[in-house]
Amino acid sequence: MVEVPVVRNILEANDKVAGELAELYAEKKILCLNLMSSPGSGKTSLLEKTLADLKDEFNMAVIEGDLQTDNDAKRVAATGAQAVQINTEGGCHLNSSQVKEALNHLNLENLDILFVENVGNLVCPAEFAVGEDHKVTMLTVTEGDDKPEKYPLMFHISSVMILNKVDLLPYVDFDLDKARAHASKLNKDIEVFPVSCRTREGLDDWYEWLRKARAAKK
Amino acid sequence: MVEVPVVRNILEANDKVAGELAELYAEKKILCLNLMSSPGSGKTSLLEKTLADLKDEFNMAVIEGDLQTDNDAKRVAATGAQAVQINTEGGCHLNSSQVKEALNHLNLENLDILFVENVGNLVCPAEFAVGEDHKVTMLTVTEGDDKPEKYPLMFHISSVMILNKVDLLPYVDFDLDKARAHASKLNKDIEVFPVSCRTREGLDDWYEWLRKARAAKK
Repeated sequence: MVEVPVVRNILEANDKVAGELAELYAEKKILCLNLMSSPGSGKTSLLEKTLADLKDEFNMAVIEGDLQTDNDAKRVAATGAQAVQINTEGGCHLNSSQVKEALNHLNLENLDILFVENVGNLVCPAEFAVGEDHKVTMLTVTEGDDKPEKYPLMFHISSVMILNKVDLLPYVDFDLDKARAHASKLNKDIEVFPVSCRTREGLDDWYEWLRKARAAKK
Repeated sequence: MVEVPVVRNILEANDKVAGELAELYAEKKILCLNLMSSPGSGKTSLLEKTLADLKDEFNMAVIEGDLQTDNDAKRVAATGAQAVQINTEGGCHLNSSQVKEALNHLNLENLDILFVENVGNLVCPAEFAVGEDHKVTMLTVTEGDDKPEKYPLMFHISSVMILNKVDLLPYVDFDLDKARAHASKLNKDIEVFPVSCRTREGLDDWYEWLRKARAAKK
């Protein structure tokens, strides 16, 4: 009986701080993207490519969320971007207060794009906004084309679905049209980018979307 | 300030009902396994193979947990096993009360093995026991060999780690020894079974473990 109202309080408190962060990003003209997926879908790999390929074009920073380890922050920092790691110590998602605290460790002046890489989890992070302009969800072709249908909230609220590891398509049963149709049914405006971080296939389309989203924020 | 004690109450309430379920399984000599993984790691595929291959040996039933859809219950029911679907309507894990309710829809007489297929999530289900004798965690070689290190609780508390999709090993960067070493560091007794539900490689080792676990319950 006590669970529902308390969860609602936690979500309301999270939304309040997320609203403050959205105002801060608007004031400083920073595009903030909340990057989410299951564990191992390639969020960090996508960031490594994006940060390296666009480093002469944009000033970018990353907040990394993980239960444990600072492996991911080290990987993205190797590209030269600013990076800060949040360890949730078992927590299943990032919340807006954790992100607010992490911002104290970043230089926000002249920052163009802030990526928040969430904990690997296709469920819980969907409910906790962190002030982002867009949610970007990754799915891999090895996870199965039924995942938008089975994890609907995540795809319903995302502006972009990145379908990673398309280089593995010949070796798995994955119907790209079916995955796209499921996602579009949940969210008619969702943009779908099939990519391979390994072969670089499709990354240019993602970068083009990023440029437009960044331009819209100025 | 209110979050921690409330979470603790929820966990205590869950453990209480899980204890009742464990007593019921002991009384009826049913082996209960809680099957967990990220979305798309192949939990349902493993069950399809296991239920079909061992159907003359054991009387088995499945409780399926998903946010939405009854696709998985239909897939496992096609093998002839008893199956019941729990839709969590967005909830990120199964809890023991949901499993207790689902048991009303199964015939437990002469049942040898009950599989509980949890919501696809490598974080939250780890904290909610459902009366199981063992937790069995699946990981795929496409998710990366760093996952035990990054999602430690799940591997710390599991009796078995099934490494699925080994047929894709030639196409991904995955160090099996590294994944095994990380998991063993978290849990020195964990049993590791590399398998491919697609090619059937390694399934016999899993079946042999299942037979021993079942025999120990009698």
